[in-house]
Amino acid sequence: MEKGDSYAIVDLNICDKDSEKADSPDTLKKIPLTTVIKIQRDRGERDYIGFATLPEQVHRKSVKRGFDFTLMVVGESGLGKSTLINSLFLGDLYKNRKISDVQDRIEKTTTIEKKTMEIEERGVKLRLTIVDTPGFGDAINCEDSWRVCSAYVDEQFRQYFTDESGLNRRHMQDNRVHCCLYFVPPWAHSLRQVDLEMMRRLHRKVNIVVVIAKADSLTAAEVKRLKTRILNDLDEYQIQVYQFPECDSDEDEEFKQQDRELKAAAPFAVVASDTVLEIGGKRVRGRQYPWGIVDVENPRHSDFTKLRTMLISTHMQDLKDVTQDVHYENFRAQCISQISQHAMRERGKLKRDSMGNNTDVVFTDTDRLLLQKDEEIRRMQDMLTQMQQKLKASDKKHDSIIDV
Amino acid sequence: MEKGDSYAIVDLNICDKDSEKADSPDTLKKIPLTTVIKIQRDRGERDYIGFATLPEQVHRKSVKRGFDFTLMVVGESGLGKSTLINSLFLGDLYKNRKISDVQDRIEKTTTIEKKTMEIEERGVKLRLTIVDTPGFGDAINCEDSWRVCSAYVDEQFRQYFTDESGLNRRHMQDNRVHCCLYFVPPWAHSLRQVDLEMMRRLHRKVNIVVVIAKADSLTAAEVKRLKTRILNDLDEYQIQVYQFPECDSDEDEEFKQQDRELKAAAPFAVVASDTVLEIGGKRVRGRQYPWGIVDVENPRHSDFTKLRTMLISTHMQDLKDVTQDVHYENFRAQCISQISQHAMRERGKLKRDSMGNNTDVVFTDTDRLLLQKDEEIRRMQDMLTQMQQKLKASDKKHDSIIDV
Repeated sequence: MEKGDSYAIVDLNICDKDSEKADSPDTLKKIPLTTVIKIQRDRGERDYIGFATLPEQVHRKSVKRGFDFTLMVVGESGLGKSTLINSLFLGDLYKNRKISDVQDRIEKTTTIEKKTMEIEERGVKLRLTIVDTPGFGDAINCEDSWRVCSAYVDEQFRQYFTDESGLNRRHMQDNRVHCCLYFVPPWAHSLRQVDLEMMRRLHRKVNIVVVIAKADSLTAAEVKRLKTRILNDLDEYQIQVYQFPECDSDEDEEFKQQDRELKAAAPFAVVASDTVLEIGGKRVRGRQYPWGIVDVENPRHSDFTKLRTMLISTHMQDLKDVTQDVHYENFRAQCISQISQHAMRERGKLKRDSMGNNTDVVFTDTDRLLLQKDEEIRRMQDMLTQMQQKLKASDKKHDSIIDV
Repeated sequence: MEKGDSYAIVDLNICDKDSEKADSPDTLKKIPLTTVIKIQRDRGERDYIGFATLPEQVHRKSVKRGFDFTLMVVGESGLGKSTLINSLFLGDLYKNRKISDVQDRIEKTTTIEKKTMEIEERGVKLRLTIVDTPGFGDAINCEDSWRVCSAYVDEQFRQYFTDESGLNRRHMQDNRVHCCLYFVPPWAHSLRQVDLEMMRRLHRKVNIVVVIAKADSLTAAEVKRLKTRILNDLDEYQIQVYQFPECDSDEDEEFKQQDRELKAAAPFAVVASDTVLEIGGKRVRGRQYPWGIVDVENPRHSDFTKLRTMLISTHMQDLKDVTQDVHYENFRAQCISQISQHAMRERGKLKRDSMGNNTDVVFTDTDRLLLQKDEEIRRMQDMLTQMQQKLKASDKKHDSIIDV
């Protein structure tokens, strides 16, 4: 069928009022009756209905609402996680950070550090949250590292589940982790025990994207070898990292080519830099060695640009959709089956009680309801505080404009 | 702030693993710590991150997924409902219909007839469902007419609520009624008892758009008078038909002008036609009278084009969003409160039973607490609404100051 053509398949369903007994809609009896009509319209006729604007209506609304995205970075200290984030988002998020000394690092366990920035680009607003895991893998026993990360991901899902089940869903915030950048050191020969352990815990709940950090210490041949080994390991240990969706066949050739290149490059070997250098009059983020300058954004030097394109320009929405449709739905299904098992036990217990025993009633539907309401009140309090700040900020901003 | 500028507000949250006791994520203690960093980047630097493509990513995905829309048409026989639908969607949905004879029409009660067509236009797919109500208002007693329509709308909400609460939500279908075209006959002097009765039952659960049918039997002055009377009636009887959203201040002037015209035209006085005529070499849908030809799409002849623009090209997505965010959320909230009331009664009953005597232990401490929390949530909602209004008002005030 060519574009511009319109056709219709008509499906007829009749709900007969005659068979209705009571007021309740449940008693509406449906007599399905299906006719299929194909309407092939005259090409000469003015056959533009107008709904082709629907994607634009969605586009417009999405801009108005703004976007949010949460990225988790996981990897041991010194792999350039902060530098990569700064390079990716052109920010300086880690300006004032203190490098902890060895003693601190040995004693400290893994923590979760969350930074949110609101950025705007060509009228599009993004609320970006970076979840960092300082201390990951630094301790002698790495066992609890994965536990902290996994618990954090679960906690966000749980929060979203509570919000989604609440009475008022008008101002829900999505803090779920949409992507996890997993940093593999360039000196590793392949994935190590700790990497496999970690990914095994995470791959069913978050989109993992593997990056080879500080790839400027590897030659092209070494990069290639390490990539192959990592891919083999992932395959062997059945770890499902984020799968790029198939490219539509009707995309243009340029897009298809880019898509093929992105897929071929994974796991991305990256170089990042906070330093801006001048190469031939152009200002670039780079690293200056006695033997030459590494231009972070040069595709011949590293996969940095490919990673950025994939993560931000082409697949950000897909990462969000997979989080929602696959990872969150899995979590939710588990939650529901747990709750219903619990409720069934409860009911059995209450029934036993009502038959004359005096055991304690601990968790009932009402109690769960109470918890939900507490949660909602807390969420609303947060919102009120935020709005107060906004109101204050807006007053101040406007004041200063007027003052000038 | 000008476009291209980037700034960031950073909000730091640290969840300390040290304070964690058990494996459970619930025990993760949060030590909130907020720092605000503003990053004002050098305009000279290559400061394009790439997330400005997000709306396009959404656009692309929406096209891939396709759209659905359900339109209900309500009005008595002979008002040209089918013809209008055919004219709107350039279809021939009602080709084979049999006009029922008088006896049938007197005896028949209102039925629901559902037709679904899948249409495609410029690569955008729409699954359009028309919910017709043949027999509406034909019987001598119209009382049950509204009941059938209202029950149908509720039933779709209930179905969606069930689906949404279910375990597997991957292939949910949205059959909720996104808009109801309500046909007022041109010979009415204003809204009649049956119209008011009907709209009162529907206006809190569906977006009502009022149309004056067969407006080619009214002169311009008569149309104007009827519109005014209808608007007054809606106002007097506090019936909330679909409200066009405010136009963004940053839209271009042409769009704003169109928006103003659409708003001014409601309730739309329409003429529809299944007949294609030739006027000056152009093929148009029209009606030929001895005194001239009514061109359905001529804005000087009727509001048909305005209705089509609003319903399909500009506000279709908004009609869906209002259905989801307002009507469905209201329905859902009622459902939940009914369920929890039921649970509370259940609990009271079980408790009474378990205590072995016959006194009424309806109100326990927990129940009282629940009511208190409900009250608190309601109070906070009010506060939030107030603050939102304040924020809006403040923005507007400041805007106007700067404009001057």
